[in-house]
Amino acid sequence: MREEEIQTPCLILDLDALEHNIRKMGNFAKANGMRHRAHGKMHKSVDVLRLQQELGSAIGVCCQKVSEAEVFARAGVKDILISNQVRDPAKIDRLARLPRYGARTIVCVDDIANVADLSAAAQKHGTALECFVEIDCGAGRCGVKTAAEVVAIAKTINAAPGLKFTGIQAYQGAMQHLDKYEDRKAKLDAAIAQVGKAVEALKKEGLEPELVSGGGTGSYYFESGSGVYNELQCGSYAFMDADYGRILDKNGKRIDKGEWENALFILTSVMSHAKRDKAICDAGLKAQSVDSGLPFIYGRDDVKYVKCSDEHGVIEDPLGVLKVNEKLRLVPGHCDPTCNVHDWYVGVRNGVVETVWPVSARGKAY
Amino acid sequence: MREEEIQTPCLILDLDALEHNIRKMGNFAKANGMRHRAHGKMHKSVDVLRLQQELGSAIGVCCQKVSEAEVFARAGVKDILISNQVRDPAKIDRLARLPRYGARTIVCVDDIANVADLSAAAQKHGTALECFVEIDCGAGRCGVKTAAEVVAIAKTINAAPGLKFTGIQAYQGAMQHLDKYEDRKAKLDAAIAQVGKAVEALKKEGLEPELVSGGGTGSYYFESGSGVYNELQCGSYAFMDADYGRILDKNGKRIDKGEWENALFILTSVMSHAKRDKAICDAGLKAQSVDSGLPFIYGRDDVKYVKCSDEHGVIEDPLGVLKVNEKLRLVPGHCDPTCNVHDWYVGVRNGVVETVWPVSARGKAY
Repeated sequence: MREEEIQTPCLILDLDALEHNIRKMGNFAKANGMRHRAHGKMHKSVDVLRLQQELGSAIGVCCQKVSEAEVFARAGVKDILISNQVRDPAKIDRLARLPRYGARTIVCVDDIANVADLSAAAQKHGTALECFVEIDCGAGRCGVKTAAEVVAIAKTINAAPGLKFTGIQAYQGAMQHLDKYEDRKAKLDAAIAQVGKAVEALKKEGLEPELVSGGGTGSYYFESGSGVYNELQCGSYAFMDADYGRILDKNGKRIDKGEWENALFILTSVMSHAKRDKAICDAGLKAQSVDSGLPFIYGRDDVKYVKCSDEHGVIEDPLGVLKVNEKLRLVPGHCDPTCNVHDWYVGVRNGVVETVWPVSARGKAY
Repeated sequence: MREEEIQTPCLILDLDALEHNIRKMGNFAKANGMRHRAHGKMHKSVDVLRLQQELGSAIGVCCQKVSEAEVFARAGVKDILISNQVRDPAKIDRLARLPRYGARTIVCVDDIANVADLSAAAQKHGTALECFVEIDCGAGRCGVKTAAEVVAIAKTINAAPGLKFTGIQAYQGAMQHLDKYEDRKAKLDAAIAQVGKAVEALKKEGLEPELVSGGGTGSYYFESGSGVYNELQCGSYAFMDADYGRILDKNGKRIDKGEWENALFILTSVMSHAKRDKAICDAGLKAQSVDSGLPFIYGRDDVKYVKCSDEHGVIEDPLGVLKVNEKLRLVPGHCDPTCNVHDWYVGVRNGVVETVWPVSARGKAY
């Protein structure tokens, strides 16, 4: 089947671009002596993760929820980090069963009160859970801030049966989308200093962390050169999106114009053109998330996606060049929640459908 | 199971509130001699539609895509309008097969060039399709504007084998969310005048439309009193959301404080409270769409949902009153695309789970 025959709206993956991105990050991590734990919350796909392991250098996956981890564990992934807290008793029970699939299972902790519950569940199921202490190094969400808190939680973990303290989770989420390289560097320098202090404090207590994990598509070169981190969690690099694409590299160039290629698109069709200067396409809010802005139309400067409602996108077409049923590739504003709306990825190479992959963990937000 | 035991994030429906809203709209439509064609694109649920037919006065459904219509047709719904254009050849073929399920099948047309394709497909499958001509009465999306265009398309439809012109689609989507009643009325008055002219022009040609369809939760009382419309398409009234909730009725009162009750909630749990004045909950962008603003926390003035990322919501908790694992009901900003992220509705009455309904047409955007 050719790309033009696909019924829209639909997610398509340009397989050449995807493989290029995956190889590039894999080589970067290897060359810099970093583990790459690919973030599965972005693609939610067992098939994309396999590619990251086979063509890239991914050592396993991180994800955000127990329900996602279950999908990856059942698919045979052997190293899984839930880069988030798990507090609900029913979810802790599910978490403690994950090692039975043969997966190293790691969870984040930012509260001493969580430790006893995790320990009890691991003992109940006869499993071993590893724990990272989460540091809030600027994202402003979960995590503790001071080295003293980190040490106190790590000690409590190591004293708890069934648990082992093995690392630090420190993802600076708030800086990833700052346009300027220097602005991102300043934020990351501060984060590295903060995490470094916690690592020193842990070492003094004989609790040197095996893994210090973090880093995203807007920052991975900073963590890699830090001497503090040894594990990256980049996810969006593989697909790219409009919001990441506009950030600038060291040389002031958009990162989707050289560093990474756009591999993810929403394929859409023009389905009404009753006004000469305005085309209506079939990809609206049911086909994407616009939390980080509207999509752009790939490879076209003559037409512009300007408005989004439930089922429609409004496209400015000042010259009236678009035809009904014409297909366009949209680059979504934000890849993660856009992928989560769809059931399938259609993999395309040279304009021909090569594969269809399920969004394996779609809707697994619990 | 009690509401507190549900694993979050998750959509819950307050069944008392839902039934109240459905009965109220049903009674309104009956009392005003209007057909109510409930909009299925909002809930995408066969079970909610059944309630709208049994407790309310819904005569059938409208939806936006052929894939949605297939779900409702297979569930036995007998009157289905696709309130949208269908242009792709493969989708037209699927559309023309729908009447075989025993459903009256209506589709919108805003381009004469569409008519021959619809006619050919109906003939191929030996079925009959009804057509509404769509008027753009202010939404600025699909639809033609002038009475002359409406008449020309209607004539072409009626001359085409397998097709029948039976009505007008005229939904003023752009005014539904204007806060002030008078502002909404001014927009709707203009729409009614425009649609009225088209109806008059059609009558002169012997093409009086059987149905004139439109109206949403912010406007249905205007269409009902117009003498031009005879069919309403309200959908959001059944669930309510934060964006609709803040519009004002005739007396300046928010419509979620009397006219309708909040029936739809995202149930969320506090999963981190490492900072005293900030709680992190587990409902972010994977649990909702924030295109129309952030959710509010139902029934609470002391805490506020202020920020949303992929998996997290940040809640200001100045007094530190929230506890980890505490559950909160969020009213989403926009119900339609929020429902489309979830696989299930959990129906709750008096704090106890009574039923679980699939979001039957989730992801059916094609």
